Amino acid sequence: MPDIQQMANAIRFLAIDAILNAGEGHQGVPLGMAEIAAVLCANHLKADPADPLWPDRDRVVLSNGHGSMLLYALLHLAGYEAVSTEALKTFRRLGSVCAGHPEIEQHAGVEITTGLLGQGIACAVGMALAEARLAAEFGPVLVDHRTWAFVGDGCLQEGVGQEAISLAGHLRLGKLTFLWDDNHITDDGDTLLSISEDVPARFRAAGWHVECLDGHDIAAIDTALAAATADPRPSLLACRTTIARGLPRLQGRRGGHSAPITPADRAEAAALTGWQHPAFDVPAAVRADWGRLAERGGAARRAWTARQAADPGAADFARRVAGRLPAGWAGLATELRQAATAEPRPTIAASGDVCDALAGPLPETLVLCADLEAPTNHKRGRAAFTAQDRAGGYVHCGVREHLMGAMACGIAAHGGLRPVNVTYLAFADYERPAMRMAALMGLPALFVFSHDSIGVGSNGPTHQPVEILASFRAMPNMAVFRPADAVETAEAWEIALETGDGPSLLALSRQDAMPVRGADRAENRSRRGAYVLAEARGNRALTLLATGTEVALAMAARDALEAEGIATAVVSMPCWELFEAQDDGYRAAVLGEAPRIGIEAAMQFGWERWLRPGDRFIGMTGFGASDRAEALYAHFGITAERIVEAGRALVAGAVSR
Amino acid sequence: MPDIQQMANAIRFLAIDAILNAGEGHQGVPLGMAEIAAVLCANHLKADPADPLWPDRDRVVLSNGHGSMLLYALLHLAGYEAVSTEALKTFRRLGSVCAGHPEIEQHAGVEITTGLLGQGIACAVGMALAEARLAAEFGPVLVDHRTWAFVGDGCLQEGVGQEAISLAGHLRLGKLTFLWDDNHITDDGDTLLSISEDVPARFRAAGWHVECLDGHDIAAIDTALAAATADPRPSLLACRTTIARGLPRLQGRRGGHSAPITPADRAEAAALTGWQHPAFDVPAAVRADWGRLAERGGAARRAWTARQAADPGAADFARRVAGRLPAGWAGLATELRQAATAEPRPTIAASGDVCDALAGPLPETLVLCADLEAPTNHKRGRAAFTAQDRAGGYVHCGVREHLMGAMACGIAAHGGLRPVNVTYLAFADYERPAMRMAALMGLPALFVFSHDSIGVGSNGPTHQPVEILASFRAMPNMAVFRPADAVETAEAWEIALETGDGPSLLALSRQDAMPVRGADRAENRSRRGAYVLAEARGNRALTLLATGTEVALAMAARDALEAEGIATAVVSMPCWELFEAQDDGYRAAVLGEAPRIGIEAAMQFGWERWLRPGDRFIGMTGFGASDRAEALYAHFGITAERIVEAGRALVAGAVSR
Repeated sequence: MPDIQQMANAIRFLAIDAILNAGEGHQGVPLGMAEIAAVLCANHLKADPADPLWPDRDRVVLSNGHGSMLLYALLHLAGYEAVSTEALKTFRRLGSVCAGHPEIEQHAGVEITTGLLGQGIACAVGMALAEARLAAEFGPVLVDHRTWAFVGDGCLQEGVGQEAISLAGHLRLGKLTFLWDDNHITDDGDTLLSISEDVPARFRAAGWHVECLDGHDIAAIDTALAAATADPRPSLLACRTTIARGLPRLQGRRGGHSAPITPADRAEAAALTGWQHPAFDVPAAVRADWGRLAERGGAARRAWTARQAADPGAADFARRVAGRLPAGWAGLATELRQAATAEPRPTIAASGDVCDALAGPLPETLVLCADLEAPTNHKRGRAAFTAQDRAGGYVHCGVREHLMGAMACGIAAHGGLRPVNVTYLAFADYERPAMRMAALMGLPALFVFSHDSIGVGSNGPTHQPVEILASFRAMPNMAVFRPADAVETAEAWEIALETGDGPSLLALSRQDAMPVRGADRAENRSRRGAYVLAEARGNRALTLLATGTEVALAMAARDALEAEGIATAVVSMPCWELFEAQDDGYRAAVLGEAPRIGIEAAMQFGWERWLRPGDRFIGMTGFGASDRAEALYAHFGITAERIVEAGRALVAGAVSR
Repeated sequence: MPDIQQMANAIRFLAIDAILNAGEGHQGVPLGMAEIAAVLCANHLKADPADPLWPDRDRVVLSNGHGSMLLYALLHLAGYEAVSTEALKTFRRLGSVCAGHPEIEQHAGVEITTGLLGQGIACAVGMALAEARLAAEFGPVLVDHRTWAFVGDGCLQEGVGQEAISLAGHLRLGKLTFLWDDNHITDDGDTLLSISEDVPARFRAAGWHVECLDGHDIAAIDTALAAATADPRPSLLACRTTIARGLPRLQGRRGGHSAPITPADRAEAAALTGWQHPAFDVPAAVRADWGRLAERGGAARRAWTARQAADPGAADFARRVAGRLPAGWAGLATELRQAATAEPRPTIAASGDVCDALAGPLPETLVLCADLEAPTNHKRGRAAFTAQDRAGGYVHCGVREHLMGAMACGIAAHGGLRPVNVTYLAFADYERPAMRMAALMGLPALFVFSHDSIGVGSNGPTHQPVEILASFRAMPNMAVFRPADAVETAEAWEIALETGDGPSLLALSRQDAMPVRGADRAENRSRRGAYVLAEARGNRALTLLATGTEVALAMAARDALEAEGIATAVVSMPCWELFEAQDDGYRAAVLGEAPRIGIEAAMQFGWERWLRPGDRFIGMTGFGASDRAEALYAHFGITAERIVEAGRALVAGAVSR
């Protein structure tokens, strides 16, 4: 039998040593949860440190990410090569795998970036859901693993954490276990400063299996982990712990969370624990006990490898896990572009057409929607993923956008599935913290939004994005598409699905988008981000730059301007980030030297990138209002007539200069 | 005794008539909650339609804002002059007080803008908290009213709603009542598609008083409302209702939510209900019964007016409710500017200095903080506002940023207090949907953020904002300040507190900010948004534009450049929105014609407003990393040396052109 207490103490002292070495860090979690982590690793976790990317591994999420040394110590002791002693000595330094908060490095066992409280457990729900869906598709021979999340008080106070509890219980994600560090302390001090609710009762109300236990009692932890594994519901282990346990000066106190520690603290802790080893030194016997995880995991992985060799689904499973699109993808994408309607149609509906067409050939697409099935219309032929039926490709997430965003991160990080999140663009602000995580992690998630502008109509300014496009264009590594019509919508989907290293956002219209591409669909023109949709007849006197439904307005204005003898080009700009990535020559040719008018039913902020002093912008200057879409476009002056007037004035000014 | 059923039917038919007239709308809520609203108004609500702004009125919040016709019908029937029959006939039209979703119009009885689910109940928590705080300050003679919130399933699924439940229970906000429209239907259909939790149990776990009742049983509603009033805890009335009740074709069905209705539906409803009146017509007897509210409310208001005339706190209360700063404010503001430290100091600490100095003279400032008391340090002399002690000026909100933002909206909309929200800028994304509501409503809330850049250091990219400044600069009506030092921080506070019609955001540093203003503090220079901090010696060859802690870098670079003979000006730009509002001449003089370098430890997005083609930007090009602040500034090349190099090259290029 392993000496689990010593395994736990090894975590404690590696954490202390790394924090002392770094000069700062959060000791509360690694010291408080050391026993929980040690029991999990000794007897329950399925993972093979020799093959960190083994698809059927259990997923471990440190949702209380500030306690990152818990995770790094665990990974080091378990034998993950990338988390060497040297790596521990670079804790919190540039380039270290041991960053201040866990940053996704799956080759090192860091499954997902955490640190913003609540994100981790919400991602864990996504991981558990991904496992359930893949298990239904490929069977338990290939897919049968669990998700374990270390959880702090803060994660459970955050709304996204509450959403996670509610939906995980509803969907009965039985392979999901939360290990709650119930230490009665947050950064401010006693948790009673801000919470007095009965947390176990809250979980039970949501249909969870709950066990309350002493988080330092090794036998109790072992029993509870076994009970969690056996129960068909998701499990909460409410582990009563002492924050910073083992540091006499700080344990159980507010300062246990992250107050600076000293060599004297270490000496006291060593005396208390009987840990008589130099910094970063772990005795061979303790390392041998930790080796049990690799032994058990290695055997499991080898058995899995043998099983899967004979499994008919193995090749497809491998493709899915690698994130490769299926053979014939290029042809399929071309078909989708060709099949896009040439009739007026909301781009959200055109997106639904594409999504529906992909349900069969790309079973990895998994649609998540926040209670807007009818107005976004992306369910169609897909069945619902439910507690009873895991085969469905559509998740009714309820009115829980933030969770939905984090679940997309968890699903994408898990692998094997491509999450497609659907809601209104006004609700993107709810989802945004999770979308930022997708961008930061470079995860291939697709965020589809309808109701992208004042075109929403009478639901009014709360529901009318005016600044949200700009807010996401400002975000690194997020490709923001605002397609002009059904063809550009299909193109955006094609590009997004081919992007493996970051998320994409599609901002789509509720109202009809007039077709602007007609038969011009041999090539995916959106790939260059912006392109000349209609060149001027003769030398360009004016360039109209537009996105989304305003491209058709620009085209109408161009007709009128050309009729007046003003040679006008229209540039469609569905994705600024892609245009930015083109060479200078291409960009210069597209934008031209003539006066420009930018047109977008949104705030101007950011458009100065494409507009020079003297150029014009036609769009919004503040929040929207409540009326029909047509009335609002007229009211706010976003019309072909106004573009024509502005064009006339600009060209006259240019001539007179 | 009034005929409450007929009062309820009047709501129903006004809603049907207005929706038919508008051609669209959500009938589910007004028809399903008509009895609840009628009983509330007949027997419990304290309000005087003749004086909608009476400070001691009960607050009514329609959190399920899509059901706006419930509120408009109620206000119309209660006698709010602005909600006339004509106004009902303009439902969902431009300029109507009856917008698609409720838009704040307190003169018309619309207390707050709602529609994004969850915001309303979270605002309601803020309103109830404001009442409790003001009652502690001014006594029940002046302040003794309740907050009633109509609540849908969606509001309770949203994380922000869950945060609201948790904190309201913890703080024992006993004058807060949620009226839950438990109709088992959301937009997607049966609520069982996405939720199966025991909602009453969830509220009980958070310490709420819960009553479950038939939401169409008038006597039961009356009893439950009385019980809610009597109970010292916040109350949930779980009202089992039938969505769209009274419309035979749609009631109790998914389509009841908002499927289009027809004159034939109205005819069937009229036949079922026995409502034989023309559209928008309400019989005198029914109007008379509705008049009870005005009678009761008018008497209460007159009694209050008489009482307050004799109250020693009345004048101060009136000042507070009017949102006026105290006499002597200008002198106080000058003192704060003069008192700002000239030592290196984090701007978040300088902000804490100001906040602490205001605790006495401006008791209306109420600080809300999300479990970051120590690192943001804005509590100081303030006591905590708790369930036991309502006099405190500091609310420990727990790790619930989104709720905190919405509470600020509720507090500001309530009046009498000035909310000051404090957390890290990386968590602004959690708070953002509520901050957008503050901007949309034009509420004077102050959002203070620390840890504004890579200066955060080793906590890494999750905690390092790079795009968040830009994302808020894109938001209409949000004044974004990034002060350079303690003086500019005091100036930003001064401006923010003087701004009555919109929110302000302060982005402040964790790390020391070098003082740049020295003794130059006779005038609040930040009022113009940007200003020449140091003019070039001689004709400007170069202009450095910077914000926040990077202003000191620009000053250091200027010294080096001037030493090389390059005449360099430094422009501090603490608030772009204010600078934008200056006249062209001032802006041109500040920016100058010389080559420019923009400097900000953030993404360039938006800086093109101030930089012309050929100008330079020194800042971030992606997410941050984990290391000490100094190491990160060096790593990302945001240094005085790099500014000097760029300046040299720019000036050489300009000369050679």
